[in-house]
Amino acid sequence: MKSSHLYPIILAGGVGSRLWPRSRRRTPKQFLDLAGTGRTLLQAAYDRMIPLVPADQIYVVTNAEYVATVAGQLPDLPPANIIGEAAARGSAAAIGLAAIHLQTRDPQAVMAVLTADHLIEQDETLRQILVGAAELAQEGILITLGIEPTYAETGYGYIEMGESLGVFGGHPARLVQSFREKPDQATAANFLAAGNYAWNSGMFVWRVDAILAEFERQLPLHFAALTGLAPALGRVDEAAAVERFWMPLPANVTIDYGIMEGAGRVAVFPASLGWNDIGSWAALLEVLPKDESGNVTLGRHLSHESRNVLIYSPNRLVATVGLQDMVVVDTDDVLLIMPAARAQDVKALLTALRSQGLEGLME
Amino acid sequence: MKSSHLYPIILAGGVGSRLWPRSRRRTPKQFLDLAGTGRTLLQAAYDRMIPLVPADQIYVVTNAEYVATVAGQLPDLPPANIIGEAAARGSAAAIGLAAIHLQTRDPQAVMAVLTADHLIEQDETLRQILVGAAELAQEGILITLGIEPTYAETGYGYIEMGESLGVFGGHPARLVQSFREKPDQATAANFLAAGNYAWNSGMFVWRVDAILAEFERQLPLHFAALTGLAPALGRVDEAAAVERFWMPLPANVTIDYGIMEGAGRVAVFPASLGWNDIGSWAALLEVLPKDESGNVTLGRHLSHESRNVLIYSPNRLVATVGLQDMVVVDTDDVLLIMPAARAQDVKALLTALRSQGLEGLME
Repeated sequence: MKSSHLYPIILAGGVGSRLWPRSRRRTPKQFLDLAGTGRTLLQAAYDRMIPLVPADQIYVVTNAEYVATVAGQLPDLPPANIIGEAAARGSAAAIGLAAIHLQTRDPQAVMAVLTADHLIEQDETLRQILVGAAELAQEGILITLGIEPTYAETGYGYIEMGESLGVFGGHPARLVQSFREKPDQATAANFLAAGNYAWNSGMFVWRVDAILAEFERQLPLHFAALTGLAPALGRVDEAAAVERFWMPLPANVTIDYGIMEGAGRVAVFPASLGWNDIGSWAALLEVLPKDESGNVTLGRHLSHESRNVLIYSPNRLVATVGLQDMVVVDTDDVLLIMPAARAQDVKALLTALRSQGLEGLME
Repeated sequence: MKSSHLYPIILAGGVGSRLWPRSRRRTPKQFLDLAGTGRTLLQAAYDRMIPLVPADQIYVVTNAEYVATVAGQLPDLPPANIIGEAAARGSAAAIGLAAIHLQTRDPQAVMAVLTADHLIEQDETLRQILVGAAELAQEGILITLGIEPTYAETGYGYIEMGESLGVFGGHPARLVQSFREKPDQATAANFLAAGNYAWNSGMFVWRVDAILAEFERQLPLHFAALTGLAPALGRVDEAAAVERFWMPLPANVTIDYGIMEGAGRVAVFPASLGWNDIGSWAALLEVLPKDESGNVTLGRHLSHESRNVLIYSPNRLVATVGLQDMVVVDTDDVLLIMPAARAQDVKALLTALRSQGLEGLME
C-alpha cells in the first residue's frame, strides 16, 4: 500500500448553526477562518493533506449549494474532485457517494474520511496515522480514528477499545470493543478513568470495496441508490438519476449508526491530535490562544478587568468592564452576547429567531 | 411678580462622559434622545418651559462649540438667546455670564437655572415650583430646588432643610440649614430616615441682582471679569474682552462651592419631580420603561432568559442568552458591555482609551 492509492475525502456539508451569528447558512463554519489563522477550516483540512498526496487525490463532499464556495477556497483542487450533494442526506449517504466516485476511478482506493469543520493542531501526527491506517486497511477492516480524551466530555460519543492489533506507521491500533452514545457526567468520568476509551472523531479509513460491501450488507437501500446513480455520474442523465436515486434517501442516516455500530470487526487508532470539533463558541474560547487575562480576541478588545472572555469583532472596538466567562460575537447585522456556559443555547435563540420571522438573520 | 420677568436659563455645557460611547465629545448627553422619546434631553428641557414663558425668555448657556447644535435642536429659540462660553469655566462662571446678559435686558429679571442633561417627568410640578420660587425670590433670597430622596444615594450632594418659609405657588419652601457633600452609605441612610434632607438638583431660582450681589461678595474675581465683559457683549470688541476677562477665570468653580455654601440665607423647595440625573448607564436602566423581564430596549433585542438588561442598539439585532443586570451599548465604532453595577467604571475605560491613543473614539 502506498499513498498513491490513498484518497482523503473531506466532508464539508455541515451548517454550523451553533456558531451563529458568525456561521450562517450561506457561509457555514467550515468556510470561515474561525481561528484567525488566515486560512478557513476547509483550507486547513486541505493543506493538511497536501504533504501526503497530490491535490487530485483529495475530494471534498459538500452540499451542491457550496460547490462554488469550495472551488473558490481551494483553487488548486481539480473541480471534478468537488462532489456536490443535491440535498443533505446524512453522513452515510455522503460517504457512500464519495465511495462510488472513487471506485470508478481506482478500485484499489483507500478512503480517508476527514472533517472540514474541526480544529486539528497535530497535522503531522494525523498524516502518520492515516498512512498506518491505510496499511491496516488492506486487511479489509474498517478503521476509525479515536481522540484520546483529555477531560470527561459529555457531548461526544466514545469508543471502547479492546485488544491491540499492532503498530502501523508508528502508531498503535486496537480493536473496537463497542461504540458508546454521549454519556452522562458520571459515565464520562468513568470512561476517562478507565483509560481505554477514545472520543469518536468522525474520521475513518477503509478500502473503498470494504465500505461498499458494508453498505450492501447494512444499508441496502443506500447501496441500491448509489449503484443506480454511479453510471450516470458526470453524464447528461445525472440530474434525472439524482432525482430518482438520491432524493428519496432518508435524510439523516449517519455513518456511525448506519455502518460502524454494526460493522463487526472495526479498528481504532487512538490519537492526540490537538483536536476540537468547535461545537460551540465555548469550545472556541477553550482552544484559541488567550492573553494573560484569559481573553481571546479576534478583532479589537479594550478590557477593564474582564477575564476569560471571547471577543469576535472585526469591525468595531469592543470595550468591556468586569466581564467573566462571556462570549461576544459582533457581526454586521447581529450582536450575540452570552455566558460561555450557555453556548449550547444558541439553538434556542435560533428557534426564537424563526418564531419571530427573523430567519433572514440566519442566511 | 409675573412670568413676564421669569427667565429659564438652561445649562447645556456638560460632556456626559459616563454615557460613552453613546455620548461623545461632539454630541454629548444633553443633545441625545437617550430616553427614546423622540426629543433630546435639551429639547425636553426647553419644551418644559414653553407653557410658562415665551421662547424669547428662555436662554441656553453652552460651550461655544455647541452653539450650532443648540440652534439646530431648538429652531424656535432666538439665536441671541444661545450664550456660548469661549471655554468651560465651571458652573459659577456659566451662571454669572447668563446673569450679566439678563441684567442688561431686564433689571427685574428672575433667573431659573435649569439643567439640560437630567430627566424630569413631572413637568407641571416643576413649572408650579418655579412660579412659587419666583415669588419667594422677590425677597432677594437665593433658592435651590431639592429633590425628595427615594433611596440612600451616595452619589449626590444633600441639602439639610430647616424651618418652613411658607407656601408659594402651592409648594412649601424651607430654609436651608446646610449643604452636605456626597455622603457615605451610612450617612445617606441617616439622611433618608431623618426626612429633612433633599438631593441637590443643580436647579436654582433668584433675582438677577441678588445673584450678582453674591458674586461681588463671594467671587470678586468672577464679578470683575463679568462686569468687565458685559459692555462688550454683542459688539465688535467682544472677542478681545473674552480673551481678557473670561479666559483667565479658574476652570472649575461650581455655583455650589463658589456661591451657595457661603450665601447665608438660602431657601429650598423640596420636590418630587420624577428627577434623575442619568449619571450613568445604570441610572438609565433604572428610569426607562422595562418589559416583563426587566429589560430596557432601545433598538432590537432578542432575549433568551435575560433579565434586567439595558440594550442600546439602533442598527443591529442584539441576541442575548442568560444575561443579568448588564448594559450593552452598540454604536457604529464602539460596542460597550458591562455589568450595570460597574457603570461608573466607564471613566476607567476612557482613561485606558486615552493611554492607548484611541481618543478618536471619544469624539
